[in-house]
Amino acid sequence: MGEKILIIGGVAAGPKTACRLKRLMPDAEVTIIDMDSIISYGGCGIPYFVSGEVSDEKELRTTSFHVVRDEKFFNDAKGVSMLTRTKALAIDRKAKTVLVENLDTGEKKDLSYDKLVLATGSTPNRLQIPGADLQGVYFVNDMHRAMAIKDDLAKGRVAKAVVIGGGAIGLEMAESLTDLWGIETTVLEYMDQLLPRIVDPAFAGMLAKHFRDNNVTVFTGESATGLEADETGRVCRVITPKRAIDADLVIMSVGVRPRSELAREAGLQVSRQGGIEVNNCMQTSDPDIYAAGDCVEILNQVSGMKNIAPMGSLANRQGRVAADNIAGIPSQFEGWVGSFIMKAFECCIGGTGLSYSSAKVLDFDAAVAITAQSDRAHFFPTQAVIMLQMVFDKTSRKVLGIQGFGPMNDSILARINAGAGLIARGATIEDFSNLELAYAPPFSTAVDALNATANAADNIAAGRLRTISIEDFMNWMDNPQAKPGWAALDIRHPKEAAEFVDAFGNDLWKAIPYVNVRSRHKELPNDKMLIIICDAGTRSSEVQIFLDSVGLTNSLVLAGGFNAIRRIGPGWWPSQ
Amino acid sequence: MGEKILIIGGVAAGPKTACRLKRLMPDAEVTIIDMDSIISYGGCGIPYFVSGEVSDEKELRTTSFHVVRDEKFFNDAKGVSMLTRTKALAIDRKAKTVLVENLDTGEKKDLSYDKLVLATGSTPNRLQIPGADLQGVYFVNDMHRAMAIKDDLAKGRVAKAVVIGGGAIGLEMAESLTDLWGIETTVLEYMDQLLPRIVDPAFAGMLAKHFRDNNVTVFTGESATGLEADETGRVCRVITPKRAIDADLVIMSVGVRPRSELAREAGLQVSRQGGIEVNNCMQTSDPDIYAAGDCVEILNQVSGMKNIAPMGSLANRQGRVAADNIAGIPSQFEGWVGSFIMKAFECCIGGTGLSYSSAKVLDFDAAVAITAQSDRAHFFPTQAVIMLQMVFDKTSRKVLGIQGFGPMNDSILARINAGAGLIARGATIEDFSNLELAYAPPFSTAVDALNATANAADNIAAGRLRTISIEDFMNWMDNPQAKPGWAALDIRHPKEAAEFVDAFGNDLWKAIPYVNVRSRHKELPNDKMLIIICDAGTRSSEVQIFLDSVGLTNSLVLAGGFNAIRRIGPGWWPSQ
Repeated sequence: MGEKILIIGGVAAGPKTACRLKRLMPDAEVTIIDMDSIISYGGCGIPYFVSGEVSDEKELRTTSFHVVRDEKFFNDAKGVSMLTRTKALAIDRKAKTVLVENLDTGEKKDLSYDKLVLATGSTPNRLQIPGADLQGVYFVNDMHRAMAIKDDLAKGRVAKAVVIGGGAIGLEMAESLTDLWGIETTVLEYMDQLLPRIVDPAFAGMLAKHFRDNNVTVFTGESATGLEADETGRVCRVITPKRAIDADLVIMSVGVRPRSELAREAGLQVSRQGGIEVNNCMQTSDPDIYAAGDCVEILNQVSGMKNIAPMGSLANRQGRVAADNIAGIPSQFEGWVGSFIMKAFECCIGGTGLSYSSAKVLDFDAAVAITAQSDRAHFFPTQAVIMLQMVFDKTSRKVLGIQGFGPMNDSILARINAGAGLIARGATIEDFSNLELAYAPPFSTAVDALNATANAADNIAAGRLRTISIEDFMNWMDNPQAKPGWAALDIRHPKEAAEFVDAFGNDLWKAIPYVNVRSRHKELPNDKMLIIICDAGTRSSEVQIFLDSVGLTNSLVLAGGFNAIRRIGPGWWPSQ
Repeated sequence: MGEKILIIGGVAAGPKTACRLKRLMPDAEVTIIDMDSIISYGGCGIPYFVSGEVSDEKELRTTSFHVVRDEKFFNDAKGVSMLTRTKALAIDRKAKTVLVENLDTGEKKDLSYDKLVLATGSTPNRLQIPGADLQGVYFVNDMHRAMAIKDDLAKGRVAKAVVIGGGAIGLEMAESLTDLWGIETTVLEYMDQLLPRIVDPAFAGMLAKHFRDNNVTVFTGESATGLEADETGRVCRVITPKRAIDADLVIMSVGVRPRSELAREAGLQVSRQGGIEVNNCMQTSDPDIYAAGDCVEILNQVSGMKNIAPMGSLANRQGRVAADNIAGIPSQFEGWVGSFIMKAFECCIGGTGLSYSSAKVLDFDAAVAITAQSDRAHFFPTQAVIMLQMVFDKTSRKVLGIQGFGPMNDSILARINAGAGLIARGATIEDFSNLELAYAPPFSTAVDALNATANAADNIAAGRLRTISIEDFMNWMDNPQAKPGWAALDIRHPKEAAEFVDAFGNDLWKAIPYVNVRSRHKELPNDKMLIIICDAGTRSSEVQIFLDSVGLTNSLVLAGGFNAIRRIGPGWWPSQ
């Protein structure tokens, strides 16, 4: 018989490693153990199961050819022994055995291995607040909880819900509760914005407005301090420092931490953050033990920092690399860059690489370009404006990150995917200016939105474009007295500018249409900082250069223009 | 006053160069001349104007903020002098002047320049056949012809049309004639397939079937040898060696050639193919003369060959680089890779880099992986299967090209764009296996279709996967006697296999479901070459490895599986 490979964990990285191993080493004896009875499921699909878009939980664990991936499937089709309801208690590295317990019978035994793979995943963080254990308070980390949530919904037990945590999973859950079940839903995020650290404030602002427009209440900078129960012991209220919110259901989605106790107890190296330490071959500090998935710590190729990246896509890639190396194929997992994408009702938000705020914290010489460009030819019927941001290092001119917000289709995906591989390789602004994205009017513009964003970054890096952040401009709009030397120069169509001229007065809000700036620039004051505003920022950039050339050198361009302002809405900052 | 920049050509590269120049050198005197009265239009939008999806030709030449880009716009908004109906007759490089003629008045004069930019574009090829000049025979290369075509359609003059040329523009025109105007349309392509050289036969086959399914008649390997007129002198019939086809309208779309006569006559270096030769700064052999757009020859970064690449997106990028260099910014246009995308009714076809056939001609050690994977999670309601192909060099493991065919949305675009930048940088199969594409169930799968295609390529390159081409398999289906040693092993659901078992007989078409192969492999003959067939090729790959491990080493996997076969349809090869 072949080598004995034992894998602990049967959700994503574990099954991937097992199946790849059987393809590379058909003679190997591959065994997976998992504590759960339900294995090999697409956990990222849970919000769509809860919403009802996916009607049966089995759909999350069937193959593309409609066979359920259960024990029998792994045995018959894959030649992999799958032991469910089986818990690993301890690893004896010297004897190369794992002590396991059958959770149904209580029986314990040692399983021997030649190579061991830890795919133990992650465990959800639990807020240490009163009531966190009440009935009706759920995590979203396994199928049993997902089914319990859906059961509560189907039985009509839920009219109001609170989601604690404004990360991707929390927001996807909020959407599924609101959109399909019509539940009055509130999202609580203790940081100042949604998707903190992942996206920058302007993009989080667009997302928050879209959630609010879709009847989700969003409170940022606000944390749950306690949960209260009704007479039956079920949660009925969420308490924050500012208010009490009625809730028949609470989703607690405040991040995860690696499940690395087994590894630590076996003396393997585990990082301070709790991730199992691995090399590029996914090998732990014991060369006969590999690890992959949510339980490991990996290198971020942009920041150079090691951290936890609990994503199903990375788990699969790591599982493949682990299997390759066990089979003697020297493949490498070199790290991650942080690509993500998320549906949000009728919109989509995505990114790759670092946010501007992360880049600043990491001491990059970071700057940012924001554009509002058409996703396809402006004359094509399905055209829409997408907001893109490029974060770059002014010194090295390397692109550090991209973010996008647009309609719910694959237009943002197409730009994020274009950037991911290049950012991992340290590509520069020029590489993105010249990136040959596919063009035809139904799909893109001759100068693709991503190229245009790189061109804006190039102009900023070279000092040819001076911008003001959306936050600073919106703060000025809220309180113009705070910056007495500023005035807006609105170069949009006079009809579009009119309401602002009325509201702010002609001194604070000058309106000269773009096509007339060259002939009418003498009307402009030379003692003001002019904030040039158009719809997208493109015409404003041109006007800034022209004004410089006629001696009006005191101006800033509103990047992204009114397309950004409109998407964020009034009163966005700080949150209402 | 500043430097005098004269630009010949006012469609794409010319205006781009001019506008960028005015932003970099506000004092420069920038003049564009163009023979036409209509300038700065999106020529790629012509099929959508003809179809009626774009109702007014002006929409193809308005900015995103709805202003028509005419002479006045360039003068007022851009500070660029635009001289239309003005033809350049000769360049005097010594005097640094261009002799121009006003086509309305006949007046001639010399325009002086410090720097000259040639953006003279391309001219359509004309078949040298009888009747090529008849009324009702059109090229698709400028707005006047586009308006004339639409006028013919609107006046009800056209019931039947023939498009000569199965390239992208011809196919887009065929779609617009059929789909929106209900015209009985035939496409004639003299090569053996649609999009010759651009895509490989299997992908061209999928495209041809989809056109036929949408009521377009497609004849490949067939050329027009003459056009016949009715009594009014208008075209009424297209003659080929095989038939006569009635036609009230003929679109001749058989490629373009660079307009480089002016450059050649001025003694500038022009390639054998007729493209103006430029360096990476878009500078011609005269350092004071730049060139950009369809008229230049550029480097293909994958093949290493120089050629013509008449695409609006490249023209814009080249124009920017030309302007940068004229303004003293050392930016570079390093070449192109061949990214393209095309709408085809309800489908989409795209690619980047080299086709397999091109790679073979160029003496790469080329091989190809084809997959049929879900564009998004298989449980997500809008999921569809997309066909992807990766061409790679077996020796260097570099990825040479990607092709995709899928539904009409941005899912193919997202994979093509992800590949373009990497292919330009010589990325390997491993780079694509590990490429961190954004993942969430509404957008992709945990192992993205593109990652999966790279994984298949990896297995092929390493000898772990032996495939048969779709063409070879379909030829065998047409004529099994030609390969007496072959038998199909159909591992799909027995219901799916049944009709083929009936048609071919149990000796030629074995059916054992995937999940039973491990227990039933002894039923298989050991004296046959087994062609393993599933829906996508994935399960077949696994079965091949298993069969190898039990001594049945004589097998080939049908890459792309029945998903490919179904999309190509019977009788595709050779064309009907």
